[in-house]
Amino acid sequence: MNRRVVLAARPSALPAPGDFAFAESRVPEPAAGEFLVAARYLSADPLQRWRMDETANYGATIAIGETIWGRMVGEVVRSRHPGWREGDVAEGMLGWQTYALSRGETEKARYAPGVTRVDPSLAPVSTSLGILGMPGVTAYFAMLEICDPRPGKTVVVSAAAGAVGSLAGQIARLHGCRVVGIAGGPEKARHVQSELRFDTAIDYRGSPDLQAALRAACPDGVDAFFDNTGGEVADAVYSLLAKGARVAVVGRIAQLGGKGTRADVQEYILAARARIEGFIVYDYEHRADEARQRIAGWLAAGEVRYRETVHDGIESAPQALIDVLQGRGLGKHVIRID
Amino acid sequence: MNRRVVLAARPSALPAPGDFAFAESRVPEPAAGEFLVAARYLSADPLQRWRMDETANYGATIAIGETIWGRMVGEVVRSRHPGWREGDVAEGMLGWQTYALSRGETEKARYAPGVTRVDPSLAPVSTSLGILGMPGVTAYFAMLEICDPRPGKTVVVSAAAGAVGSLAGQIARLHGCRVVGIAGGPEKARHVQSELRFDTAIDYRGSPDLQAALRAACPDGVDAFFDNTGGEVADAVYSLLAKGARVAVVGRIAQLGGKGTRADVQEYILAARARIEGFIVYDYEHRADEARQRIAGWLAAGEVRYRETVHDGIESAPQALIDVLQGRGLGKHVIRID
Repeated sequence: MNRRVVLAARPSALPAPGDFAFAESRVPEPAAGEFLVAARYLSADPLQRWRMDETANYGATIAIGETIWGRMVGEVVRSRHPGWREGDVAEGMLGWQTYALSRGETEKARYAPGVTRVDPSLAPVSTSLGILGMPGVTAYFAMLEICDPRPGKTVVVSAAAGAVGSLAGQIARLHGCRVVGIAGGPEKARHVQSELRFDTAIDYRGSPDLQAALRAACPDGVDAFFDNTGGEVADAVYSLLAKGARVAVVGRIAQLGGKGTRADVQEYILAARARIEGFIVYDYEHRADEARQRIAGWLAAGEVRYRETVHDGIESAPQALIDVLQGRGLGKHVIRID
Repeated sequence: MNRRVVLAARPSALPAPGDFAFAESRVPEPAAGEFLVAARYLSADPLQRWRMDETANYGATIAIGETIWGRMVGEVVRSRHPGWREGDVAEGMLGWQTYALSRGETEKARYAPGVTRVDPSLAPVSTSLGILGMPGVTAYFAMLEICDPRPGKTVVVSAAAGAVGSLAGQIARLHGCRVVGIAGGPEKARHVQSELRFDTAIDYRGSPDLQAALRAACPDGVDAFFDNTGGEVADAVYSLLAKGARVAVVGRIAQLGGKGTRADVQEYILAARARIEGFIVYDYEHRADEARQRIAGWLAAGEVRYRETVHDGIESAPQALIDVLQGRGLGKHVIRID
């Protein structure tokens, strides 16, 4: 049977387990030109949350009863498609379910069910959901195209222990920047500094005055900010932007439940002549291979490191997403399917 | 005697007449290498307000009792400087007073008392404070360097009847954009549409639902926003940014008294992948001549128009600034000195 996670109710802010339900249906048979993928891992990503809203800013809303939109990596178990064979590994927007059909389209549009071929000899296939997947591509282009990392610059990364932030900060380090990571909790801060080799890590939960801690870490101001969360953490960084600072607005987890940034952002933008730019990875889909190859090279050379938080079984998928949105765990959250 | 406007008290939000006082001192004698300028016009600019704060974001704070920092255009009446002769016309940061000494430095730093030579045959000398001065240079570079005006784009300009906004919108029109101006009051809206030839003008004071009025004027969203005010007007525009929109943050009059923008700016930046950039004209001082020549050409060809609101006598200077900050009057506010 194909087991699926479906939307049971619209969450108001943070989703609760009861907002999800499970459904079963027969494993579909591929028609001509299709192939069947058996999931190995499902992905838990913040972006999923926004499509659960009645009016989704990032595209179509998930209907009540519909399979949760989400990424999967899995193995082709039956194929009637000329380009895909049994045993091939595919990653794509195939939904939170244990089996999915694909027509093998490449992923061009934001919500099209396209797939990418994964080379399992390169790295564990779960990385196609993380450092070699959408989070990695996000970190790569948002850092390089917006933050303009150059030697001597001070770069701040929020959610620095997460799937995106951990790589973004390492890329800045590889470009000669002084990198300051912000993370929630002492364990994450330690991880960011000792394992990911950021120059400094700040535990915002343990810092009674985050702005003061940031000022101490960035005495000449912040030249670039990889804003992964929005909210109060972002407010503190905005007030320290140096002249000509670059800000990539990448995520807004902290804005769940209306706790959006309330700082006088324009005042800081004006005073610093900062450039702030929104980033959505789908705009870079056509260049994703460039990012994957470069990141794979860094991985092979030991220049970047990654972590995964593994949840077991499709039943754990709702909690995995809740954990992501609450900032629990290190690195990329994946759901292992047996 | 040299009559000066001095700071009597720090305004809390909008300055009151009592925050200013007048002082007199003897007209100074130029030393070797100096010349004396007799004011013809003083300038009232929003930027002056911010230097009255205890902590000025834009540089040094004006001390209590000190002459108000401000621009002047006037005639050289005595000179011991080899490059300046009696009858020459100089514009610069010479303070709110009727006479000023200058050493003829060019204006390089933000608060240096440098001067620029004005060609009185080109246009009335008061324009050196307005369309051919700092407001004109601001409109020129913030529009061209940040808003990226191109044929077919929809460009929104706030404070569209003011010294900066009126030119910014006309420059966008000359670059083939559809230009929507926002102004306060029916008289200004008429001026913006009929005299300045914007495609549409919206009177935000007369619009119970500004966002709806903007949506009707910009059915395909806003490709560029020249943000001259911040505040609620800016909030309404942010929510309508089109994909890849450009925003120049130029002014923040509306944020006087803490009424700053409170929209979830990052959410809109992210959804639109917008690029928002702060602009301060001093960063473009070295290219000011390029702007002045281009604007003078448009003026001569009748392609751009300007208005001045003239206040008479140095005693009217405080009220002139209050009027500017409250959005009264059309175009550039100048104070005529006899």
